[in-house]
Amino acid sequence: MPLLKSWVASANSADTPFPLNNLPYGVFSVGDEDPRCGVAIGDMILDMQAAEEAGLVDLTDYALFEVPFWNDLMEEGPAVWTALRNRLTALLSEGAAEQAKVEPLLVPQAEAQMHMPFMVSEYTDFYAGKHHAMNVGTMFRGPENALPPNWLHIPIGYNGRASSVVVSGTDVRRPWGQLKGPNDDAPRWAPCARFDIELEMGAIVGVPSEGPITVQEADDNIFGYVLLNDWSARDIQAWEYQPLGPFQAKATATTVSPWIVTKAALEPFRCDTPAREVELLDHLKDCGPMLYDIDLEVTMAPEGKDASTIVRTNYKEMYYSAAQQLAHHTTSGCPMNAGDLLGSGTISGETKESRGSLLELSWGGKEPVTLETGEERSFIVDGDTLTLKGAAKGDGYTIGFGECAGKILPALDDPYKR
Amino acid sequence: MPLLKSWVASANSADTPFPLNNLPYGVFSVGDEDPRCGVAIGDMILDMQAAEEAGLVDLTDYALFEVPFWNDLMEEGPAVWTALRNRLTALLSEGAAEQAKVEPLLVPQAEAQMHMPFMVSEYTDFYAGKHHAMNVGTMFRGPENALPPNWLHIPIGYNGRASSVVVSGTDVRRPWGQLKGPNDDAPRWAPCARFDIELEMGAIVGVPSEGPITVQEADDNIFGYVLLNDWSARDIQAWEYQPLGPFQAKATATTVSPWIVTKAALEPFRCDTPAREVELLDHLKDCGPMLYDIDLEVTMAPEGKDASTIVRTNYKEMYYSAAQQLAHHTTSGCPMNAGDLLGSGTISGETKESRGSLLELSWGGKEPVTLETGEERSFIVDGDTLTLKGAAKGDGYTIGFGECAGKILPALDDPYKR
Repeated sequence: MPLLKSWVASANSADTPFPLNNLPYGVFSVGDEDPRCGVAIGDMILDMQAAEEAGLVDLTDYALFEVPFWNDLMEEGPAVWTALRNRLTALLSEGAAEQAKVEPLLVPQAEAQMHMPFMVSEYTDFYAGKHHAMNVGTMFRGPENALPPNWLHIPIGYNGRASSVVVSGTDVRRPWGQLKGPNDDAPRWAPCARFDIELEMGAIVGVPSEGPITVQEADDNIFGYVLLNDWSARDIQAWEYQPLGPFQAKATATTVSPWIVTKAALEPFRCDTPAREVELLDHLKDCGPMLYDIDLEVTMAPEGKDASTIVRTNYKEMYYSAAQQLAHHTTSGCPMNAGDLLGSGTISGETKESRGSLLELSWGGKEPVTLETGEERSFIVDGDTLTLKGAAKGDGYTIGFGECAGKILPALDDPYKR
Repeated sequence: MPLLKSWVASANSADTPFPLNNLPYGVFSVGDEDPRCGVAIGDMILDMQAAEEAGLVDLTDYALFEVPFWNDLMEEGPAVWTALRNRLTALLSEGAAEQAKVEPLLVPQAEAQMHMPFMVSEYTDFYAGKHHAMNVGTMFRGPENALPPNWLHIPIGYNGRASSVVVSGTDVRRPWGQLKGPNDDAPRWAPCARFDIELEMGAIVGVPSEGPITVQEADDNIFGYVLLNDWSARDIQAWEYQPLGPFQAKATATTVSPWIVTKAALEPFRCDTPAREVELLDHLKDCGPMLYDIDLEVTMAPEGKDASTIVRTNYKEMYYSAAQQLAHHTTSGCPMNAGDLLGSGTISGETKESRGSLLELSWGGKEPVTLETGEERSFIVDGDTLTLKGAAKGDGYTIGFGECAGKILPALDDPYKR
């Protein structure tokens, strides 16, 4: 599929993340106005509440866009998803009859503040990138025991905390926690000293389900994808995670990009998961290409300094697809709802620069990363801004997600001394 | 405090779980009518929507009881909680001036169907009963290594799945899952063969919070308590839980009792946590009696047979209080919301009959439990009904929760063969 031409001129370059081929869904506000749903096109946003009020989008017997989130559309299911995408494509295409009506409803992205694009029902994080699992496992248990025995048979996941999910641009406060390092006699209460990123993709469930669903059904139920940074307090995690998994180490914040890129926009970029090293049980087997070829990178910018790229990898490095993860998530009958968010797990590739966390990049702090500005980093320093970027490269066009960025603020004084 | 007398005669016995001292909050329906909020009194339910419409309850500048859940009241905070309790006590007390107006708004419990009393925002389950942790740890790792190193320093918890929480009386379908027993060469897809209960109390967060809160603040923010059965698929759990904790093993269902017993009703039953074996860090220390003296039991009834009591224990056996758990839950800045549900963890005592799970009662299946009807049980058999009961015994009165019951239905035929 080539670049689709729009009458919005800025949408017609090969580099814009938001050509007519993309049409991602976000929530924005301008000035003091209330947040509302919008669709990115070039460097503009189409105000969906205004478009609906103007009678330009009329798909359901109730107003879809009176609320500042996309969950209502998600629940409508694939037929309405397709109808909306077709309608938006028609409204914004070169030569569209409605151009004069739509043009006044465009808002410059430069004037908009972005908000969470959806209400997160529940949040699940997976551990389903093999290079990441091998790296972390090797650090903690040696290369022979790096992968847990179940790892090649099920996408390992754990429930996270939906209340902690924030949109790109939200500052993240370094947490305090209970820590016990290898040289500590007893645990102590201290600010996290090993605060880290996890470069992930987030899949958003659209269609609710009850009971077990197949991998194909799971793929059908997914609404779209965001970039996701699962901020991780490694020292809190090391002390707390046995035997029931990460808890407070992952509860400070998880940042997502502001634009939900739909499955339809990503369709040309589908690719297969890597070869299976062990055959999966039937219900978890691939049934088509369900990963996506999306270039990913992370930059780090110390306070007041230029950003350096510290990670370059690709979503296709995952061992399990989001569809496989969602199918596994339902095996015991777990009900899934519109707005459920599934983090892919950290996406690391084979090479050193493709490792998706500082834990891996600095090999547990033993090999600090040197930034282009000369600073060294094992973990995040106060004032650093970490930014995830993603781009699927088509034939003369790019599908982007917007940035997924957060700046780390210093820990508060002891929050219990007040 | 003695029994408070009500003009509802059935509320004045020492045995009713719902005397005027209790006034627990539920959601009920009669026949085909929509569910609505209600308060239990004796063998009746006060219809709160009708009471509000009749002008008998007028605490806020909007209608609290047009919706079939108690979350709106929770968010109002302690002053309104107290005002409502005072108002209900006045309306239902012996000699109340409003008796003639209130009496027509009472519905017999025998005619009512109960529903979830609140919308579960997020669900967290803890592992904070020491006897349970010792029992399970001893079975898996031997008595020397039974308790993980962090156990005496933090209440270990993991995030569960809010979508799977159901009200008492909901049938529970035996799940399928990926299993790999000690004698299996490879994992297989099969119905769970070790389906189990966990006898717990659930604490419900009322007041939202951002950032770390103290144990006292946590206690203040808790709205009330329910009985909670965290159904557990032990064979799925054994295979999946390393390294990130239980996932599908706990996602089939968690059953709660239909009545939220408020903190105010439980006030006379506060008691201290057991002596600390290791001093806690300051921010997790007790600051008053924050456990409760509540007798708990579990009965098991095979299909068509009488129920046998298989567990008798008490909530005061917990090592950590719900307030300590909630405080720990916020240490890294995790935002908490009205309707967040915190499972205490399995409540086992020192004696064999006080063990709160079949895993412990049957010692991993090695010592089956014999029911009064003669049947033996290591784990749950299809058709069994498991019922949790709780009662705080006051001076001439009882504070009850209603039953927390579920019947296990046979697994479906392979849900992927269709």
